[in-house]
Amino acid sequence: MHAIEKILAKKAGRESVVTGEIVNCAVDLAGINDLYLQTVRSFFEMGGTKVHDPNKVIMFLDHYAPASTIIQADNQRQFREFCRNQGIDLLMEINEGVCHQVLADHGLSYPGELLVVTDSHTTTHGAFGAFGTGVGATDLATILITGKLWFRVPEVIRINFEGKLPKGVYAKDIILHAIGALGADYAVYKAVEFAGSTISQLSVSERMALCNMSTEMGAKTSYIQPDEITMSFVKEKVSREYEIFTTDPGYRYAAEHTFDVSHLKPQLAAPSSVDNVAAVTQFIGRAVDQAYLGSCTGGRVQDLAVAAQILAGKKIHPRTRLVVVPASKAVFLEAMAKGYIQTLVEAGATFVTPGCAACLGTHQGMLAAGETCITSTNRNFPGRMGHTKGEIFLGSPAAVAAAALEGKIVDPSQYID
Amino acid sequence: MHAIEKILAKKAGRESVVTGEIVNCAVDLAGINDLYLQTVRSFFEMGGTKVHDPNKVIMFLDHYAPASTIIQADNQRQFREFCRNQGIDLLMEINEGVCHQVLADHGLSYPGELLVVTDSHTTTHGAFGAFGTGVGATDLATILITGKLWFRVPEVIRINFEGKLPKGVYAKDIILHAIGALGADYAVYKAVEFAGSTISQLSVSERMALCNMSTEMGAKTSYIQPDEITMSFVKEKVSREYEIFTTDPGYRYAAEHTFDVSHLKPQLAAPSSVDNVAAVTQFIGRAVDQAYLGSCTGGRVQDLAVAAQILAGKKIHPRTRLVVVPASKAVFLEAMAKGYIQTLVEAGATFVTPGCAACLGTHQGMLAAGETCITSTNRNFPGRMGHTKGEIFLGSPAAVAAAALEGKIVDPSQYID
Repeated sequence: MHAIEKILAKKAGRESVVTGEIVNCAVDLAGINDLYLQTVRSFFEMGGTKVHDPNKVIMFLDHYAPASTIIQADNQRQFREFCRNQGIDLLMEINEGVCHQVLADHGLSYPGELLVVTDSHTTTHGAFGAFGTGVGATDLATILITGKLWFRVPEVIRINFEGKLPKGVYAKDIILHAIGALGADYAVYKAVEFAGSTISQLSVSERMALCNMSTEMGAKTSYIQPDEITMSFVKEKVSREYEIFTTDPGYRYAAEHTFDVSHLKPQLAAPSSVDNVAAVTQFIGRAVDQAYLGSCTGGRVQDLAVAAQILAGKKIHPRTRLVVVPASKAVFLEAMAKGYIQTLVEAGATFVTPGCAACLGTHQGMLAAGETCITSTNRNFPGRMGHTKGEIFLGSPAAVAAAALEGKIVDPSQYID
Repeated sequence: MHAIEKILAKKAGRESVVTGEIVNCAVDLAGINDLYLQTVRSFFEMGGTKVHDPNKVIMFLDHYAPASTIIQADNQRQFREFCRNQGIDLLMEINEGVCHQVLADHGLSYPGELLVVTDSHTTTHGAFGAFGTGVGATDLATILITGKLWFRVPEVIRINFEGKLPKGVYAKDIILHAIGALGADYAVYKAVEFAGSTISQLSVSERMALCNMSTEMGAKTSYIQPDEITMSFVKEKVSREYEIFTTDPGYRYAAEHTFDVSHLKPQLAAPSSVDNVAAVTQFIGRAVDQAYLGSCTGGRVQDLAVAAQILAGKKIHPRTRLVVVPASKAVFLEAMAKGYIQTLVEAGATFVTPGCAACLGTHQGMLAAGETCITSTNRNFPGRMGHTKGEIFLGSPAAVAAAALEGKIVDPSQYID
C-alpha cells in the first residue's frame, strides 16, 4: 500500500484498502473558513444539534479579515456564535491568518493526519505527510455531525524533481513547470506524491508551496514522505499524537514523471490559466500595475525574506504597487522580528492584515479592468483577483519582488546574490 | 483681526476682511481623497481641461486602501490616471495613510496655510495654525480650475481649557467633554480657537486630535496659536514657505468658554451621537465586541504608545477583537521601530493597512448588527462603522486599549502608571 492508503485504512479502522474503493474514515480535524457559512447552515438543515467532537473542529476567519462589509461582519458574528454554542475552542480569529498556514503554525498539521477543510488548497498538508483535502459545505457538515466522511481511495501519481535548484528558482517555479507540462486537470481525483533529490533539499515552507499548488493540477491530495526536515519542524510544533506511514516497496504508481530542474529558468503562469506556463524570459518587459506577495502559496517568512533581500535599500517602481500579505500572524511577527517588514515598507510595500486578501478576489488588493498583476498566489483565471479584464501572472516571491522594483516583469535570478 | 481673518485676507490679496463678508481666496493646497471621484468628474463637467496649478493639488488613496472591491479598484485607477495626465506629483498612494496625517508627515500642514480637502476633518490643521476646511466635490473642482474658492469670514469662538490633565485623561476626553457641553451643532460655520494652559502642554499629536474633533461641533475651521511646540514640529518637517499670524489684542470673540479640566474623568460619547457624552464611569462593565484604535483622530504614534503601554505582556479579552489602524505609513514605521506594533500584535491586536478603514464604514473592521464597539475615531451615529444596529462608544486610545484588555468598558486611568 501507499502511505496515504495506510492513512485511510487506519482512519477507516481497517487493515488495508485498495485503490478505487470507497471507505468511511474518521476525520482527525475538520476546518471551516468564513467563505463557508453554508456549512453551519447545512449542519442544522441536516438535523445537526451538537457537533460530534468540538476538539476535532477548527474555524478560520481568514477570507475577509477584518470584515469590510456588513454581510462579512455578520457572517463572522455567526461563526463566533456557533463556536461559543458548540464549545469549539479552535476559533482562529481575524489576524490569525490563512487557514493552511495557521494549521502549520499551531502544530495542527502532522504526519498521518486526516485533515479536511472547506478549502481546495488543503493539499498543502501533504508537506507534513498528512492526507489533506478540501470539501464543500455539505461534506463538512457531515463530518460535524458524524465525525466521519467517505473517501474514494485515489490512484497515486509520483512526480520526481531531480537536481539542485538554480539561483532564483524555487518550489513555485518547479510546480508551475510541472503543471504546465501535465495540464491543470491532469491529476483530477488522484493523489500526487512529490519525491526526488530536489525535494529532499527543500524547506518545509517550500514543500508547503509545492503541495499547495498540486491542487492546480486537480489533485485530491498530495504527499511528501516525512524526512528529517519534516520532523525537525513537527517535533517543535506538534503536540497531538502522530504516526508516520511509509509506502510499501513495489507499490505501483498510476503514473510517474521525472523533471530535471537543475537548469530550469524561473517560470510564470501567464493569463489566464495556471497551466499556461513558460520561462519568465518570454515575458520580460511586460508592465505591472500590482505586485502581490502573499497567500497560502507564497506568503511565508521565507517568501518575505527573498523579497526583502531584493528590495533592501531600494524603492519600488512608482507606477507599481506592492501589496504584501503575511500568511499568518506568526509569519508577520517573525518577519517583523527579522526586519523584513520594515525593509519592505520602507521600499514602498503596502502591508495587509494576514489572511487571504485579494488572492481570491474578495478583499484588499483588487484589480481594476486593464490592470496587470504578478503574484505569488495560486490562480490566475479571469476575475480571480478582481475585474475579469485584469490579467494575472503567477510566479515566485522573487519574481514578484523583482517586478515591483522594476515596474515590469524581469528575470528574478538576476536580483539574487 | 483674528489670526484666521489675517490668513483669509492675505489669501484674498487684501489688507483686511470683516466677519461675515465673502472673500475669494487663493488656496495653498487642495486635497482630494478617493471617496470623491466626483471631484474629477465635476472638473470635466465644469469645463476643466488643465488643473490651475498641479503643485497645489494633492490626491489621497486612503478611504479604501488597498481596494477591496472592483469599483474601489477602478476609482483608484481613475485617480492615478488623472494625476498622470495632469502632472500632479503629490499622489499619496495606498499605504501612505489618512490624508490629514499624511499632510502632517509630509510637511504640507503649516502656519498660515489655506488648506482645503474633500474631507470634513480638515479642521485638524488648525493644530499648526493653518486655516483648514472641508468641502464637497464641486467646490474642490472649482479650486482645480481657478486655484481659488470663496469663503464667508467666520465668527470665532474661543474655548479655553485650563489645568493639568489628570492621569488617563487626554485631548480626546476634553474635546468630547466640550462637545457634550456645547452640542454637536454649536459651532456651525464658525471657527473655534483652542487656548488656555492645558493646550500649551499638549503635544502636536494631541492638538491634532483636538482640532480634528472640532468638526464634531460643526466648526468650519479651528485654530491653535502656534507656539514653541508647534514650531519645533514645523521646523523639522516643513519646507514650503509659511507665515505665522497672530490675533490682534482686543479682538472680540463671538463667544468664549472656559473648561477647568484638572479634575476631569475620562469621557465617552455614548451611542449614537457625538454629544451624548458622560464620564466613562457611567458605562463601566458594558461588554465590547470590537475595540478600534485608529483614524485621523486617534491613530498616531502617541496613541499606539498608550495602547502598547496598557497591553504590554498581556492578552486582549478572548471575546473582544482589537483592530489597530496606524494613521499613516510613517506612523506604522515609527511605531514598529519603537516596538509598539510587536507589543500590540503579541497582545492579540489585528493590524490593518494605514488608512481610514472602518472609521467611516467602508473598509476593514465593520460591525455586525448587535455588536458594540469602542473606538478612538470621531463619529458614532447609527451605521457609521457598519450595521445601523451596531453601537459605538467614542473615547481616547487609552479607553479603547483598556476595554480590549478587559472585554468591557473600564476606567482607563486605572491602567496608566
